[in-house]
Amino acid sequence: MSQIRRIGLLTSGGDCAGLNAVIRAVVQRATYGYGWQVVGIHKGTAGLLTRPLEAQVLDLGQFTGGLLRMAGTVLGTTNKGDPFAYPMPDGSRLDRSQEIIEGFRELELDAVIGIGGDGSLAILRRLAQQGNIPLVGIPKTIDNDLGDTEVAIGHDTAVEVATEALDHLQPTAASHDRVMVLEVMGRDAGHIALSAGIAGGADVILIPEIAYDVEAIARKIDALRRQGRNFALVIVAEAVQTEDGEPVGEVKASGGVNYGGIGHYIGRRIAEATGAETRVTVLGHIQRGGTPTPRDRLMACSFGVHAVDLIAEGRYDRMVAWSGRRVIDVPIADAIRAYHAVEVDGALVRTARGLGISFGDA
Amino acid sequence: MSQIRRIGLLTSGGDCAGLNAVIRAVVQRATYGYGWQVVGIHKGTAGLLTRPLEAQVLDLGQFTGGLLRMAGTVLGTTNKGDPFAYPMPDGSRLDRSQEIIEGFRELELDAVIGIGGDGSLAILRRLAQQGNIPLVGIPKTIDNDLGDTEVAIGHDTAVEVATEALDHLQPTAASHDRVMVLEVMGRDAGHIALSAGIAGGADVILIPEIAYDVEAIARKIDALRRQGRNFALVIVAEAVQTEDGEPVGEVKASGGVNYGGIGHYIGRRIAEATGAETRVTVLGHIQRGGTPTPRDRLMACSFGVHAVDLIAEGRYDRMVAWSGRRVIDVPIADAIRAYHAVEVDGALVRTARGLGISFGDA
Amino acid sequence: MSQIRRIGLLTSGGDCAGLNAVIRAVVQRATYGYGWQVVGIHKGTAGLLTRPLEAQVLDLGQFTGGLLRMAGTVLGTTNKGDPFAYPMPDGSRLDRSQEIIEGFRELELDAVIGIGGDGSLAILRRLAQQGNIPLVGIPKTIDNDLGDTEVAIGHDTAVEVATEALDHLQPTAASHDRVMVLEVMGRDAGHIALSAGIAGGADVILIPEIAYDVEAIARKIDALRRQGRNFALVIVAEAVQTEDGEPVGEVKASGGVNYGGIGHYIGRRIAEATGAETRVTVLGHIQRGGTPTPRDRLMACSFGVHAVDLIAEGRYDRMVAWSGRRVIDVPIADAIRAYHAVEVDGALVRTARGLGISFGDA
Amino acid sequence: MSQIRRIGLLTSGGDCAGLNAVIRAVVQRATYGYGWQVVGIHKGTAGLLTRPLEAQVLDLGQFTGGLLRMAGTVLGTTNKGDPFAYPMPDGSRLDRSQEIIEGFRELELDAVIGIGGDGSLAILRRLAQQGNIPLVGIPKTIDNDLGDTEVAIGHDTAVEVATEALDHLQPTAASHDRVMVLEVMGRDAGHIALSAGIAGGADVILIPEIAYDVEAIARKIDALRRQGRNFALVIVAEAVQTEDGEPVGEVKASGGVNYGGIGHYIGRRIAEATGAETRVTVLGHIQRGGTPTPRDRLMACSFGVHAVDLIAEGRYDRMVAWSGRRVIDVPIADAIRAYHAVEVDGALVRTARGLGISFGDA
Repeated sequence: MSQIRRIGLLTSGGDCAGLNAVIRAVVQRATYGYGWQVVGIHKGTAGLLTRPLEAQVLDLGQFTGGLLRMAGTVLGTTNKGDPFAYPMPDGSRLDRSQEIIEGFRELELDAVIGIGGDGSLAILRRLAQQGNIPLVGIPKTIDNDLGDTEVAIGHDTAVEVATEALDHLQPTAASHDRVMVLEVMGRDAGHIALSAGIAGGADVILIPEIAYDVEAIARKIDALRRQGRNFALVIVAEAVQTEDGEPVGEVKASGGVNYGGIGHYIGRRIAEATGAETRVTVLGHIQRGGTPTPRDRLMACSFGVHAVDLIAEGRYDRMVAWSGRRVIDVPIADAIRAYHAVEVDGALVRTARGLGISFGDA
Repeated sequence: MSQIRRIGLLTSGGDCAGLNAVIRAVVQRATYGYGWQVVGIHKGTAGLLTRPLEAQVLDLGQFTGGLLRMAGTVLGTTNKGDPFAYPMPDGSRLDRSQEIIEGFRELELDAVIGIGGDGSLAILRRLAQQGNIPLVGIPKTIDNDLGDTEVAIGHDTAVEVATEALDHLQPTAASHDRVMVLEVMGRDAGHIALSAGIAGGADVILIPEIAYDVEAIARKIDALRRQGRNFALVIVAEAVQTEDGEPVGEVKASGGVNYGGIGHYIGRRIAEATGAETRVTVLGHIQRGGTPTPRDRLMACSFGVHAVDLIAEGRYDRMVAWSGRRVIDVPIADAIRAYHAVEVDGALVRTARGLGISFGDA
Repeated sequence: MSQIRRIGLLTSGGDCAGLNAVIRAVVQRATYGYGWQVVGIHKGTAGLLTRPLEAQVLDLGQFTGGLLRMAGTVLGTTNKGDPFAYPMPDGSRLDRSQEIIEGFRELELDAVIGIGGDGSLAILRRLAQQGNIPLVGIPKTIDNDLGDTEVAIGHDTAVEVATEALDHLQPTAASHDRVMVLEVMGRDAGHIALSAGIAGGADVILIPEIAYDVEAIARKIDALRRQGRNFALVIVAEAVQTEDGEPVGEVKASGGVNYGGIGHYIGRRIAEATGAETRVTVLGHIQRGGTPTPRDRLMACSFGVHAVDLIAEGRYDRMVAWSGRRVIDVPIADAIRAYHAVEVDGALVRTARGLGISFGDA
Repeated sequence: MSQIRRIGLLTSGGDCAGLNAVIRAVVQRATYGYGWQVVGIHKGTAGLLTRPLEAQVLDLGQFTGGLLRMAGTVLGTTNKGDPFAYPMPDGSRLDRSQEIIEGFRELELDAVIGIGGDGSLAILRRLAQQGNIPLVGIPKTIDNDLGDTEVAIGHDTAVEVATEALDHLQPTAASHDRVMVLEVMGRDAGHIALSAGIAGGADVILIPEIAYDVEAIARKIDALRRQGRNFALVIVAEAVQTEDGEPVGEVKASGGVNYGGIGHYIGRRIAEATGAETRVTVLGHIQRGGTPTPRDRLMACSFGVHAVDLIAEGRYDRMVAWSGRRVIDVPIADAIRAYHAVEVDGALVRTARGLGISFGDA
């Protein structure tokens, strides 16, 4: 029934663990299951903005197990450059969407699989509609803030890396009677901090969804001391703001270099409020590149296979998703719309409170 | 409303990663949240069969983070000795249920939290009904064959250990042109083999739910060779039977020592059928003792807190369960009844087939 | 021959992986091997400055395997407060050495085992001489800058953590065409950066022993690009200075909070010189708390046993040391004197250069 | 001075972690440092027994970091087939050495680097002498029984994997009051069992260098019980024999399949002698395929670079070696001659005894 011969595949947005496992699964299913060609497009849509196009037929050879275990994306990716408002060297913005759509045409693709977070999927969907390109989406985001899927690729590994960081910080905190602050990723939502905070034994979890008060944090740390605990572990999502909403002023970024932000602010404020010896660690990009957990690999395999099957069935404009222990699919539009912040009265927050963990709000 | 003062806690059946994290969460919630005492009963119900009783009030002190990260159970456990048909030294069976019920009474417990798999929970429920003991259950089983919960404590870690074993076997298989057979746990169900097989890049997955044929396995291995692959990875659940249903006869167990079983049988049969150099690894107890994954810890924390909350609400005869990303609760009876084998037409099996993995059935 | 009854044990200076394994070995050997008591002194010599003294007889019970695997020190430690010039609240310095010596006397110790780096061992030796206390030293320092021992406790684990960080940064660097800068510990010497840089596949290693030039780094990165490599990994020891020797000015520390330093400077300078998208990670305290590697555990066990044996033989003022695959002992004075910087013409630097790694000096 | 244009590289004997890192280092140094070609020969010398020869110029491309981290050997290897007595299909033995030497000639190699253990290096040396081929050797053996080098490639990773296995077995042993027996590799020498046994907290270590007595093991386990310990960890090297020297009779191997051996025997004997619930794990090939430790990578890089430098200097018939923290080189003949068993009065055995570990000999 389907007349598919050749499909495109691209990864877009920040990289994470599990992308290569998706690529492997897509190629495996499309090539060996259906006899299609898979064209890998380089660096998200950016590979379609250059001429010659940066894309090639993917032939993974017989041994693809390496991809299963390897973080990152062999296709490359980018999180810059919305093609509808592409940043030009002179600072202006240009609509380059038509170039990309022409790129798709030149590659003679019958359909495209795009792997990305909410921002990337929204852009890809707009391109697909404008260019009449059959599209299937696969969700990935270490932040896990995409709606309509229980979890997206990369999150489980990011939580594991952040949890291990707390595992490493605990003994040194205890040996030196210190408060250890760990800043983890989470541009908008606090899922990593919440899950890793519970799993890693944090005493305080700060997430953007729950307003905090440094005095409340200090009271928690004092309470721990009175109970005989000589150290404390604090985990904070990068999206958390300063108490007065001012930008984190003391640490200036220059050029393309990122500087640690809210973690240092929180650490300094705790030191002031409690007198405790405080140390700050900004986990940074280490969170993206861990060896994919079995769960991330399992999801990646399921997503890749199911996305190809959706194309074979002619079911487009849909995103594969995870629910319970199985892969399902939902309209891309719904997934993008349903932003998935931490539920402040949800089960995990209740678990954390039940364990005596403070969110700095009481 | 609740008049709880003192609750019991026990772990029963085979140990696994995450039990100590549950113990920590229960004590934390019950002691600091509600002001109750928690009495830890040793070695499952066996601690109530001795006089004096083997049980003690749990005071975990201020630092309980170690428990979060430590596999096994500090309470001890046992998977021998159904108290309704207790094995006596002379080989006879004795109903000792009343001794255990009296033990509960002597400890003056207002309720009991039992952590176990389907067998243990069924026994605990029968004891609870007979002795009129308020009971809440927490599911654990590395095999993940308990119904009405998406996953039980210990499974995620067991899958991780098994996946890492495949990660280790792959390069040595490829270096020597070998077929590597890995036997993993799974007394009745093939969940570990299925998940680890997909995540670890197996070429063949053998589970008790799908009948296999050595010829089909040999055809798969030959097909891989023709495609240029010089090695193969085979994962087999311990519950898989020989082709003719005969017991694995060549390997005899003596005394209390376990011998590897079906893995060696499968390895020998593959060697005979393909001429390939074949090596067998029986992963064994290493699967139980891994550092709990963040997911097992998160679930353990949620289960422990929620189980205590159920007691506080007077909601008994229920088991906590995992659904989506949250803890729920279900009747214990339902969970025991709903045995959870691998669905042979389910999403994960379809994923595996979509990746070209053989179940030895075609 | 020896009249030992009771020995003291303390950990001093920054914590690291393997200290608990030494404590376990000392107690095991002294208690079970010789029938002595071991008194654990808390927080280095600080436990002897308070009254009552903070110290207690160590009875590790039957299960001490946990200590073998656990980072940090259950005795606590401190890296503040030279007792010969102790920092007083009013900012002055006070010689409190006599208080500590009296503390040793009050504990009725026949000898003391001190675990520390060069600074701590120098102070302990001075106390021992002044107070006529029989002393044996055990070397620990993640920086590995102590002389007369091939390696000290904690270094191997710190190198492993730093290497794994590079393993994590590589795929995300490659996915985004980035230069990744990793700042690792090494207050004076570049051993961690050198070993982890080689083992983790760094392209540039910056250590305080070799002067660098940002232009040379930029040339190396440009050369990689011309060869087709789209990313680069740079590892820098925290002791590296800015090019002009000015303090790292843009990042100000306040209160007791540490801020990342030279890594951010190097990242910004590389971004300026090459135009590359650059990201910086400061690994920080995560390096101290990893699960001790087998090698650190093996060394810790050997050091602990041998230190006790030295006391039994009445051989004092000596430090245990590692040479080849065995434990030896040397005069403490020699070890302190022989500061162990990276040899700029040594075998490891030659290995790195042979692999094409740049030290930013050509 | 040197007229080298083209060198050969092969891996021989059992695979292990770090081989790919050596391959990378050799290619890096030879190609970029000296401008030579490196010809990779497949499957040890077997690649020279086929026509056309199985060998190819190695061009690792720009990204070789993957090789650094990947166990096994991309060249393939074999531990069958001494070319001086090559096993023919009819069961006879044939001297095929001249075919291999002609293969070297056809490849127009100016020198060869061979990576192997004592057996492989002896064969390569004989071939080199007979064929007048300039040879440099690089030592690898997880067993670490090669003389004149402190450690060979693969040993450190194998010890890590074995130590982690004990880390996994300890909690499950303690939860169930069990004796856990772990059989590890070590065809002739007990180095892995000794190092992992100390590092992993074993109570009993059985190695071929020290004769044991099951009664002595039982006494040790009984002593632990009397001291309150409810479990025991036993590690045994595969080269250990039964007490009466009879082959391990109950477990028969068929075809090419390996069966666990001495571990099961020891487990059964302990169960009989102590009545303890005993479980056995045979770690097997998992020991070969772990991600190389930083130490194995560091050594691999140093060995690869130095081996190429030896060729550049025209210094042949030498093996690179590790001493202290540096690479050195020694005559191949000396290294082969100096078999390196565990020293029964050596430092590590003394450490083990000092910790109260039993070797089953008292």
